Amino acid sequence: MFSWLEGWLLRKLHAAAGSPGVRLAMPSGAQAGSAAAAAPSVVIRDAGTLASLILNPDIAFGEGYSDGRIEIHGDLLELLDSIYCSSRDKHDPAWYSRLYSWWLQIMQRNTRRGSRHNIHRHYDLGNDFYKLWLDRQLLYTCAYFPSPEVSLEEAQVAKMDHVCRKVVLRPGELVVEAGCGWGALALHMARYSGVRVKAFNISHEQILYARWRARQEGLQDKVEFIEDDYRNIRGRFDAFMSVGMLEHVGVSNYREFSRVVRRCVGDTGRGLLHFIGRNKGQPLNAWIRKRIFPGGNPPSLREAITIFEPWDFSVVDVENLRLHYASTLEHWLDRFEKSAQQVANMFDERFVRMWRLYLAGSIAAFRSGSMQLFQVVFSGNKCSSLPWTRAVLYQDLERQEPEWSHAHG
Amino acid sequence: MFSWLEGWLLRKLHAAAGSPGVRLAMPSGAQAGSAAAAAPSVVIRDAGTLASLILNPDIAFGEGYSDGRIEIHGDLLELLDSIYCSSRDKHDPAWYSRLYSWWLQIMQRNTRRGSRHNIHRHYDLGNDFYKLWLDRQLLYTCAYFPSPEVSLEEAQVAKMDHVCRKVVLRPGELVVEAGCGWGALALHMARYSGVRVKAFNISHEQILYARWRARQEGLQDKVEFIEDDYRNIRGRFDAFMSVGMLEHVGVSNYREFSRVVRRCVGDTGRGLLHFIGRNKGQPLNAWIRKRIFPGGNPPSLREAITIFEPWDFSVVDVENLRLHYASTLEHWLDRFEKSAQQVANMFDERFVRMWRLYLAGSIAAFRSGSMQLFQVVFSGNKCSSLPWTRAVLYQDLERQEPEWSHAHG
Repeated sequence: MFSWLEGWLLRKLHAAAGSPGVRLAMPSGAQAGSAAAAAPSVVIRDAGTLASLILNPDIAFGEGYSDGRIEIHGDLLELLDSIYCSSRDKHDPAWYSRLYSWWLQIMQRNTRRGSRHNIHRHYDLGNDFYKLWLDRQLLYTCAYFPSPEVSLEEAQVAKMDHVCRKVVLRPGELVVEAGCGWGALALHMARYSGVRVKAFNISHEQILYARWRARQEGLQDKVEFIEDDYRNIRGRFDAFMSVGMLEHVGVSNYREFSRVVRRCVGDTGRGLLHFIGRNKGQPLNAWIRKRIFPGGNPPSLREAITIFEPWDFSVVDVENLRLHYASTLEHWLDRFEKSAQQVANMFDERFVRMWRLYLAGSIAAFRSGSMQLFQVVFSGNKCSSLPWTRAVLYQDLERQEPEWSHAHG
Repeated sequence: MFSWLEGWLLRKLHAAAGSPGVRLAMPSGAQAGSAAAAAPSVVIRDAGTLASLILNPDIAFGEGYSDGRIEIHGDLLELLDSIYCSSRDKHDPAWYSRLYSWWLQIMQRNTRRGSRHNIHRHYDLGNDFYKLWLDRQLLYTCAYFPSPEVSLEEAQVAKMDHVCRKVVLRPGELVVEAGCGWGALALHMARYSGVRVKAFNISHEQILYARWRARQEGLQDKVEFIEDDYRNIRGRFDAFMSVGMLEHVGVSNYREFSRVVRRCVGDTGRGLLHFIGRNKGQPLNAWIRKRIFPGGNPPSLREAITIFEPWDFSVVDVENLRLHYASTLEHWLDRFEKSAQQVANMFDERFVRMWRLYLAGSIAAFRSGSMQLFQVVFSGNKCSSLPWTRAVLYQDLERQEPEWSHAHG
């Protein structure tokens, strides 16, 4: 009788997920979904977990998988791909899920203080952790693969070249970078484009590392790393760069973000925003916000464009690189799995499972088109610095790779 | 005394235009603005025209210039460039100008019937007229100049190749084109990409010409030219193309336009919209709407993106080609001036002045950034037809130009 009820609930759950090609099962033997032997399956260990999955599937799946109350038999990525694809057109979440999502949003508001807390929780997990699975230069944003088979290291360098070429940096110019991570792009711009850079970040660990790297490479006179909020940026610049920060700003802060951009570049400058986005405005997966990216809020392209309108900025170029983010994440997951034991020693098994789910789920989200990656180039209405066509982005770069590029091996 | 009043009003007018580097003058000798001998000047022939310029400058300038009540001494284009640049940041128009603008909008609504009337007024002026100053294939939209010095004929072919490559057309696919002009792009797609095309247009003159051309070139089995409104498009297609029509749709009709696009390509297709846009939503110059483009309504990029959001379409690529439109218009104006006597014989001197002002004003609008030209590529959430990077757009095309390309010399 109880097993019959479980079977009924499993079928309901499977239908609510858009009937993906996966099997749902419980220890009682109750099953639903695909009967194919090769189909990956989700084994739900207890009735409480099953109930929570029905009430708030995003949170319950993440929590259950992390705790071991949900086991995946078969390939996790195949399972997530299937669920993401089938759930593309599913209905809105139930009211209690939305209530929880809204409550998270309130609790994780990106005020100056809130942002500092949110960013600390993710980016200050320790540089040693990120070194295990990011590229040599620690770029924690979508790479650009000129062809799918290039290495992650090359693709991250190619991404930096790509964004520099998009804004046509010239020697002697002054550039501000909002959200500079471990500093790779700021240093790259200074080294290869001959610009001076002020780079802002509120992650303490990242800023310390970036300053160390600048000194190591003799670029401390060209690049200033400042541990401060983007809202406190002052001064006038030729270009505004922000790669992977807008997702943390929050749509409700775009008016202020917009004023900062305007203050930085006036009507003669230009800039680039690189960010995770959506096809339409909707909250990020609640579990990701709860456990991985507190305050995360990828905008729709339309929401992002509201940043440019008040100041008569022109949108010059938009490129959607979502498949490149899927590839980037595949590299990261692969390296992460190879270091899983070390990660478990640093943290614990639960942490490994959380991050595995986050990385694999992100691959599925970018593959399926649930998430997008936009690079937007904009210019002030008196800017005269942009190229005639985009052909220059696709010409071979000729330059000597310096010694330092091997220093972080 | 009267001359003193005129001088005061001229100074007021000059300031309201953002104090451009031009001189305003009246036969009485009253002057305002630039005192430089080389500055172009606007001579306002009578007090009534001066009063109308103060009340509703956009309309009064266009009407006065067309009628000869306003004369330009010096270079018209230099004058318009100066006015467009200085008025970028000017205040909102007065309430009576806005009232007139709004009244025009009501009178020129793009309902099915209204659109037919609006399109007829512009595009049915006679193919012989447009042949005088457009390229050989009669493309009446922004060209793409791989480098600034290529000819208009080449740049229009390059534009067609550019948009075909952006949506990656494959032989055997079925494409719908909304707003096909004189048919050049539809025929180009059929010839070079091997697709079949259904092309819609409500301009009777254009459709007749396009059908004649298809027969001439033996492409009548590949391309069907249909004299009908985009709202009546039925059927399923692999790609949706629209080059230079969205400006005529009107933002208030985007919900319906959006449903048409979705009906055409579902979630597996993709498409391209090429349109004149703005940095932010605002009405088109009232005189242009009154005399040249009734119902014209170039959207902001944000407004255009509302077309894609309801169906989970992804924006894949946005390119802003406003400087290419300025170049295109320079070619058109140059050819137009060379044929001015013929145009005067077809219509009259007033028509020549109207169109000269429209073409020169458009050059200034695109140069100054008052107008933008966007090409937006979008794809359904199950579309798998788009390229890995945009590099393919910048590779040399190798193909034999066929005989027909000389048939329209």
